Amino acid sequence: MKLAVVEGDGIGKEVIPAAVEILDAFEMDIEKVPVELGYGKWERTGSAITDEDIETLKECDCVLFGAVTTPPDPNYKSVLLTIRKELDMYANIRPIRPLPSVKGIHERNDFNFIIVRENTEGLYSGIEEIGDEVSTTKRVITRKGAKRIADYACKLANNRMKKLTIVHKSNVMKSDKLFLDVCRETATDTGIVHRDELVDSFAYNLITSPWNYDVIVTTNLFGDILSDMSGALVGGLGLLPSANIGDKYAFFEPVHGSAPDIAGQNKANPLATILSLKMLLEWHGDIAEAAILEEAIDSALNMGICTPDLGGKYTTSEVGNIIAKYIRTR
Amino acid sequence: MKLAVVEGDGIGKEVIPAAVEILDAFEMDIEKVPVELGYGKWERTGSAITDEDIETLKECDCVLFGAVTTPPDPNYKSVLLTIRKELDMYANIRPIRPLPSVKGIHERNDFNFIIVRENTEGLYSGIEEIGDEVSTTKRVITRKGAKRIADYACKLANNRMKKLTIVHKSNVMKSDKLFLDVCRETATDTGIVHRDELVDSFAYNLITSPWNYDVIVTTNLFGDILSDMSGALVGGLGLLPSANIGDKYAFFEPVHGSAPDIAGQNKANPLATILSLKMLLEWHGDIAEAAILEEAIDSALNMGICTPDLGGKYTTSEVGNIIAKYIRTR
Ligand SMILES: CC(C)[C@H](C(=O)O)[C@@H](O)C(=O)O
Ligand SMILES: CC(C)[C@H](C(=O)O)[C@@H](O)C(=O)O
Repeated sequence: MKLAVVEGDGIGKEVIPAAVEILDAFEMDIEKVPVELGYGKWERTGSAITDEDIETLKECDCVLFGAVTTPPDPNYKSVLLTIRKELDMYANIRPIRPLPSVKGIHERNDFNFIIVRENTEGLYSGIEEIGDEVSTTKRVITRKGAKRIADYACKLANNRMKKLTIVHKSNVMKSDKLFLDVCRETATDTGIVHRDELVDSFAYNLITSPWNYDVIVTTNLFGDILSDMSGALVGGLGLLPSANIGDKYAFFEPVHGSAPDIAGQNKANPLATILSLKMLLEWHGDIAEAAILEEAIDSALNMGICTPDLGGKYTTSEVGNIIAKYIRTR
Repeated sequence: MKLAVVEGDGIGKEVIPAAVEILDAFEMDIEKVPVELGYGKWERTGSAITDEDIETLKECDCVLFGAVTTPPDPNYKSVLLTIRKELDMYANIRPIRPLPSVKGIHERNDFNFIIVRENTEGLYSGIEEIGDEVSTTKRVITRKGAKRIADYACKLANNRMKKLTIVHKSNVMKSDKLFLDVCRETATDTGIVHRDELVDSFAYNLITSPWNYDVIVTTNLFGDILSDMSGALVGGLGLLPSANIGDKYAFFEPVHGSAPDIAGQNKANPLATILSLKMLLEWHGDIAEAAILEEAIDSALNMGICTPDLGGKYTTSEVGNIIAKYIRTR
């Protein structure tokens, strides 16, 4: 496996080394290719990501990514959005699962759902008209785009509880009628039990009854909002991993950003990145390694080994160290 | 005051009579004009709302509205959206405040914020292209639309804690740059302390730390999602009141829908409608009456007088009865 490793900016430079130390502990046959991207590179060279960088990413099998800072400069092209588009990674997978010893807003922790977010179109189309009096953004839903994310979600549901929830706002936006229809057809064709919910009341239902859900499929921006919101269920935004998956490439990253306010202090929580590494191992078929990593994370948490945001006293690198050591001595 | 009273469909026919009984208890000089709108009317007459209905609404000073059912028929024109548009009610005000004896997801109940939702544009523009392969919806932000909602929010903030949060997604949608800029300028000009947050992490922050917010201003669909989500903070969607306000008209309605599943059983929670009535009284300047109504609601809840959704044994009409009696005998 050839793995591109992107630290990026801010706490990306701290959480990625922690995850890489853990990966190294497995002593797998992996060629790591460091790639510099982001705001720091932009300041230094005038571009945050070059065509060559994209070629390098494409030559790798997958990417482990930290976080990048996006300045409010309208000329700055978002690195994340560029990569998602260039590598055509249409599925953004965000599993929400409680961790041991970490409390979210509920006492109950018997939930475990996955948000499958369409990752290439919707309000991220980039089709905009900017004016001083009127500015518009075109929300684009295509049959092809809806079909491939519906296929992905149904395949996932088939390996889990065969239960799909389609989240939309088709009572107001006709563009969601297409999304809903395609998802329904796909679920029916593949024998997946499905229901649909309007995004507004769904936000309420997901927060109050997360145990009612298994696989959730939705459009780009809804998936963005709902997954961050779900951080409240598991005890923090710093705990959510994600995978961006296409037919050819895969890209693993924590949902959180570069957090400039706490960068450089070695106190960022590396768990979202370490859980993203676990998704990478699963995606690559290293099921045994993924299971050991989960065991290591759970043990660390049960022993109170965590960063200050979770009430612990450990640094980012210590958490990485201890989990890596667990794996090495197992 | 001339008040249009719209029951609508489903539980609208139960919660509105409860609220009207309470209003009557104040023995104010109000002329009530019943208006039939909604799905039931559509089935009976072929139209859910006519031009005459709109004229009738316009002849009134304000509207007390229950809920309507919207069938998934593409030819059915949403009653609510039609009214908001025709009466140009650009501000949708959704206060989120815990009620006594009703638990939301937190132990703490020291929060009290208001979502000010732009109510006429954004993704509700109705500008759509429907196709079999591609469907689009145009998200429209205008300077005029942003300015009037920003003005409203700043005026509100000025009467409260002078603290405004602007919620947007301008890192992805340039249309939100206009919204953000206008809101920032308006807040600066009126001396309101303001900050802005991206809608995704804001959803997380609002759920986990609602006590950090006072007045929140945002675009149409974000306001829709965030307000329903906030129902989790106060113990239920059935508890959220709202006001739709324009320069000429005002319209008060519970955030919940017509709930066909529990309609006809006299068990719907009338509190969202009763709280909407309280907003109506405040809007009309009947501050003493609004305060008495709040007192009555709080007493009822403290005595366990509530519908089954809150763990009570009372019917919709009993809750209305008891609160009305409290007001009459006070
Ligand atoms: C940084 C931003 C462009 C991105 C998004 O909106 O997709 C982020 O919020 C995410 O969820 O990965
Ligand atoms: C019924 C629907 C059109 C409406 C909306 O989306 O605005 C509702 O959800 C609301 O929040 O009032």
